[in-house]
Amino acid sequence: MSAILFLGVAIGSGLLSIFVALYIFYMVNKADEGDEKMREVSALIEDGAYSFIKVQYRILTIFTIILAVLIALIFRDFGIPIAISYFLGSLASMAAGFIGVVVATKANRRTAAAAASGGLNPAFKVAFRAGSVMGLMIAGIALVGLGSLYLLWNLLPDIIFVVIPRPAGLWEIITGFSFGASTVALFAKAGGGIYTKTADLSADLVGKIEHHIPEDDPRNPAAVADAVGDNVGDVAGTGADIYDSNVAAILAAGILGAGIDLHFAPALPFALLPLMIAALGAIASVLGVFLVNPKEGQDPGPILNMGTYITTILFAVFAIVTVIALGLSLIIAGAAIIGLLAGVFIGFTSDVFTSDRGFAGFKPVPKMVESAEKSAANLILSGYSYGLLSVVPSVIGIAIAMVVSYLLGAGLEFGEWEGGIYCVAIAAVGLLSTNGMIMSADAYGPIVDNARGVIEQAQASREAIIACDKLDASGNTAKAITKGFAIGASAISVLALFAAYIESTDTLNIVGIEGLTVVNLADPAVLAGALIGALVPVVFSAILILGVERNSERMITEIRRQFDEDPGILAGTSRPDYDRCIAIATSGSIRELMPGTLIAITVTLATGVILGLEALAGFLGGAVMAGLILALLMDNAGGAWDNTKKIIESPEYTTYEQGTDDWHRVHDISVTGDMVGDPFKDTAGPSINTLLVVITLTATLFLPLIAEVHAWLAGLF
Amino acid sequence: MSAILFLGVAIGSGLLSIFVALYIFYMVNKADEGDEKMREVSALIEDGAYSFIKVQYRILTIFTIILAVLIALIFRDFGIPIAISYFLGSLASMAAGFIGVVVATKANRRTAAAAASGGLNPAFKVAFRAGSVMGLMIAGIALVGLGSLYLLWNLLPDIIFVVIPRPAGLWEIITGFSFGASTVALFAKAGGGIYTKTADLSADLVGKIEHHIPEDDPRNPAAVADAVGDNVGDVAGTGADIYDSNVAAILAAGILGAGIDLHFAPALPFALLPLMIAALGAIASVLGVFLVNPKEGQDPGPILNMGTYITTILFAVFAIVTVIALGLSLIIAGAAIIGLLAGVFIGFTSDVFTSDRGFAGFKPVPKMVESAEKSAANLILSGYSYGLLSVVPSVIGIAIAMVVSYLLGAGLEFGEWEGGIYCVAIAAVGLLSTNGMIMSADAYGPIVDNARGVIEQAQASREAIIACDKLDASGNTAKAITKGFAIGASAISVLALFAAYIESTDTLNIVGIEGLTVVNLADPAVLAGALIGALVPVVFSAILILGVERNSERMITEIRRQFDEDPGILAGTSRPDYDRCIAIATSGSIRELMPGTLIAITVTLATGVILGLEALAGFLGGAVMAGLILALLMDNAGGAWDNTKKIIESPEYTTYEQGTDDWHRVHDISVTGDMVGDPFKDTAGPSINTLLVVITLTATLFLPLIAEVHAWLAGLF
Repeated sequence: MSAILFLGVAIGSGLLSIFVALYIFYMVNKADEGDEKMREVSALIEDGAYSFIKVQYRILTIFTIILAVLIALIFRDFGIPIAISYFLGSLASMAAGFIGVVVATKANRRTAAAAASGGLNPAFKVAFRAGSVMGLMIAGIALVGLGSLYLLWNLLPDIIFVVIPRPAGLWEIITGFSFGASTVALFAKAGGGIYTKTADLSADLVGKIEHHIPEDDPRNPAAVADAVGDNVGDVAGTGADIYDSNVAAILAAGILGAGIDLHFAPALPFALLPLMIAALGAIASVLGVFLVNPKEGQDPGPILNMGTYITTILFAVFAIVTVIALGLSLIIAGAAIIGLLAGVFIGFTSDVFTSDRGFAGFKPVPKMVESAEKSAANLILSGYSYGLLSVVPSVIGIAIAMVVSYLLGAGLEFGEWEGGIYCVAIAAVGLLSTNGMIMSADAYGPIVDNARGVIEQAQASREAIIACDKLDASGNTAKAITKGFAIGASAISVLALFAAYIESTDTLNIVGIEGLTVVNLADPAVLAGALIGALVPVVFSAILILGVERNSERMITEIRRQFDEDPGILAGTSRPDYDRCIAIATSGSIRELMPGTLIAITVTLATGVILGLEALAGFLGGAVMAGLILALLMDNAGGAWDNTKKIIESPEYTTYEQGTDDWHRVHDISVTGDMVGDPFKDTAGPSINTLLVVITLTATLFLPLIAEVHAWLAGLF
Repeated sequence: MSAILFLGVAIGSGLLSIFVALYIFYMVNKADEGDEKMREVSALIEDGAYSFIKVQYRILTIFTIILAVLIALIFRDFGIPIAISYFLGSLASMAAGFIGVVVATKANRRTAAAAASGGLNPAFKVAFRAGSVMGLMIAGIALVGLGSLYLLWNLLPDIIFVVIPRPAGLWEIITGFSFGASTVALFAKAGGGIYTKTADLSADLVGKIEHHIPEDDPRNPAAVADAVGDNVGDVAGTGADIYDSNVAAILAAGILGAGIDLHFAPALPFALLPLMIAALGAIASVLGVFLVNPKEGQDPGPILNMGTYITTILFAVFAIVTVIALGLSLIIAGAAIIGLLAGVFIGFTSDVFTSDRGFAGFKPVPKMVESAEKSAANLILSGYSYGLLSVVPSVIGIAIAMVVSYLLGAGLEFGEWEGGIYCVAIAAVGLLSTNGMIMSADAYGPIVDNARGVIEQAQASREAIIACDKLDASGNTAKAITKGFAIGASAISVLALFAAYIESTDTLNIVGIEGLTVVNLADPAVLAGALIGALVPVVFSAILILGVERNSERMITEIRRQFDEDPGILAGTSRPDYDRCIAIATSGSIRELMPGTLIAITVTLATGVILGLEALAGFLGGAVMAGLILALLMDNAGGAWDNTKKIIESPEYTTYEQGTDDWHRVHDISVTGDMVGDPFKDTAGPSINTLLVVITLTATLFLPLIAEVHAWLAGLF
């Protein structure tokens, strides 16, 4: 009975989120589209984004179908259900990304128009509402997708399963859904990341450095590609990243809960409780989105943060009340809240290392401004060093959240490991519960960034530009917090998945293979697995960054060619060929993304097959450790370099007067820092999150296969 | 009986190495010191190096005495023997470093003089012989130190132990010796690294970039400090690093061998076999050094490499013959040779990523030259990415060496774990066996680098400068190979020590605490330990790099002050105040080094005390993983940036003509890359090796204490 209740609440609140998102979408779509110039500029961005999405989704669909067929063939028993789950997971993820990009590209000219006609407040509302479409959509789709799949495979009458046998290990099959979500997310995040930084680097290098034309200048052939990049990288990419962490967290908790249900048969289904908790977060997010409604004259920044805080508190209250109402131990609510606090803490420390405020006397970014005054090398070295230091509080926060939720859970009645590890997964679900609101605030960032570009290119009034600048500033803060949140979310989700992987090995005893009870790091095979796992994010980041470099090389050649062949472009008399740059960014991003993805998946399977299941667990552990360090280093160093440049460009910077030779020298150095940071923070760093989820799910999903091939191989020697 | 034989061979060959080193020292000292100008310049370097050594050793001596007293007090039973071992270990390490610096600073003017009077060949001989003093010295001291300590505590008659009780767990006490060696090495390597890069960065920034005066120009107030840095960082620092890895490898194998002796009582003492193997390497190195004797007209580079190869082959032959003669399984010799091969492989791959040759079609450094032609950001990004990729082959090499030697050893008659893990440690001993020869080739590098500086400053003939340039080039290749070797050596030593740590927990059962049998990464406390351990090299590198930046800030201010206050300096009419720069480098390097070292040791102890012994093992595992990645990344990226600059400065570079504006732009960019790479490759990267040894030894040495305090803490809750 309570299974139906939990699934009902999950699917119901998921549908609620989706409907609210669609309603807001309808409202945004009705808003004024601005003057012709704005519409024209914005249409270019919209077309560019669609053409990327089209190419990417075509390739993704082919990839998905091939993999689905392979899965159906490889898994003898439940191949078809897993393949269907996988296919639906991919589809849902693509749909979420598509809607996000549609609304974002529609919203930029409407935000610009609102800024031009009504000023700050109306512009903020349009932009934030548009962002919330993406936020509520991903929260809703996760709940509806997971909930209805569960229903489909479990609660439908037997008559439906005449062709496909009804699967037994249910959460393992739903792993297919999560795997679909995460492979699409990897394409969206890493592909979008390569796209956006290819355009950004190229536009900056030829535009700003070589020809000294301003950012977003319509004379730059890469200007539209740059704006498209914000949408496909920051909106669709980040949305897919958070969505896939959320699905993975719920899945991990579900697998561990199913273990509890099997061994202890509690009164309530612990396998479905995570869906219920996630549903509470979705409801809190819907309420939170409506509470972000600044009055005329109010500064939007604090209102945005207030919305996030209120959502957090609402969720905490809902969780406590629900747990009490269900007669469960408060420990469950406690674990969820610990996860939430860890997310807030990681977001806060990312902000310390990337904003100009710092914390108390510790001010990394202002220190980096001083380094920039010395030399480019000093700026790179200090950004890198502070990036390394920024890893510390986040990792300690994650470790504490993990240990504390484990110790709490060990107090449940299911034994230390079962209860403890379940609560670690619940902490991950808790951290991600408010993802609807967090993503709303995040997606707002690229929308206002784009609106600023539209306004600049449409040569609107000075006041409108200032209003957009203000919106942009509050968007940047939100973005820094989300980035920390996304890393924390994927880290704890991956730790939970790591436990779920170990739990899943238990199911192998039906085929006569022993499940794992320990992952012994003192065993050289496991240690070797861990060392190899640590290499995966290392190689992946290197390939992505080199990919951006290679791809931007192509685009730089193209921009220079256009400038050379038609001097009218720089003079402003003829229009550059934006489409050529868009095409280069699109095809290059997909080409550069493939090798890293295939290497990651292949090495995961190969490690398991050659060194065995325990070494594969070591592999996952090593990947998480190295991945966390590299992701935090690159995200935060990149953010800090970005803000160093922003400070030097701002009127508050007084060491050198703007426009003087000294100022130009320092500014050029800060541009170098920002250019190094761009692929760090927008391509490689955040893609590692998704990569970790993908390889952990690869290990979990293909577990029976890996185990069998390994046993066969071991039999040969 | 065979115990006496092994110890006798070890001490004997150690003494042989030391005597040969002293004899060569005497020969080098007799060589022509050059004209007055050379002697004058060189005397400045010599004085500067002594003043650094004096300050550093004073602080080190105080540190050592305090720690020795603490150890004597903390360890109730064997406090005094451990303290004595520790003190002797520090002393021996300091002595080795001192002799290296003395001979290097004496050799530079003699090499310069030989180049001026006799050309390439005589100059090579002086420089290489001087380098071999350091090489043979560290190989000899390790053998004599460990061998005689063992003798002292074990084989002396009981009458001597009337005051101090004769210790039981012998290798555990000798851990004190290794701990002494590694703490000194950390000071030497990290302190020397901060010193040398402070001077280098400052001299380059004010000299090359601001005033366009050449490298090593005597008008630069930091010129002497820069030359001193080469000696204290590269000779003393690298020597101490390799020495401490060697001692640690022998120790780890000794501890694991003692476990075999205890449980299986084989015919030969497996605890002493590592000393015997190391002794064979020392003999091979002595022979190798004498074989490096190029004839007139021969190119010294290939002869240098030939010496290394011959030493390697000699050792392999000695090992096989000895193992057969002793009636041991050939598996032992096999493991040692696998270690050796791993070292060669890692050296080779480091060379691929840092030299202009590359490997087949894969040419990272030439690619980086192309990046430099685009922008500074491109150069930084590609260097960082190739640095990341360079981690891969080395780590895979280490993993394979570990697994293969383990599997080989599992075939011995002592059971899978005991035999397997012993052979991993033997692989480490094998890798390091030829350290005498490797270090000889390495120390030759800074000597010829300095000789080039002396010749430049002494305004010698063009031919002499060209001869020194040639020597310098072959020195750089040797240095790249050694760096890879040093990382591989410390990595495998630390893996062996990691096993020795686990083995050591067995001794705790005498105090009623259970030893470790597994290190379960699936246990959240162990995973948390691993995450915290991964942070240690992260924080340590950040602190060192920020330390270099802070310290160079002080020196830059000083150089600018001197140029401002006395225009005669730049005009070449008055002499700069070299001593002020030397004093800044000296005091700053020690000040900046302390926090990182104390944090590393404290966190190691705290993790063990709070989370327990198993989590502490996880901590060590996490530290090794993150440490290996960061060390290889920084070493190789730094080396690649250095060589990118060298290519652009060389006559072979033809894209832009030297001296044109375009060439200057690209060259300035390459200088930025080199400046970023300097603290990477000469400060932070190589210090991580030593750091890993220090924390693993801290865990092993203080194991009983940590276990007791943890048990007491656990009792409180």
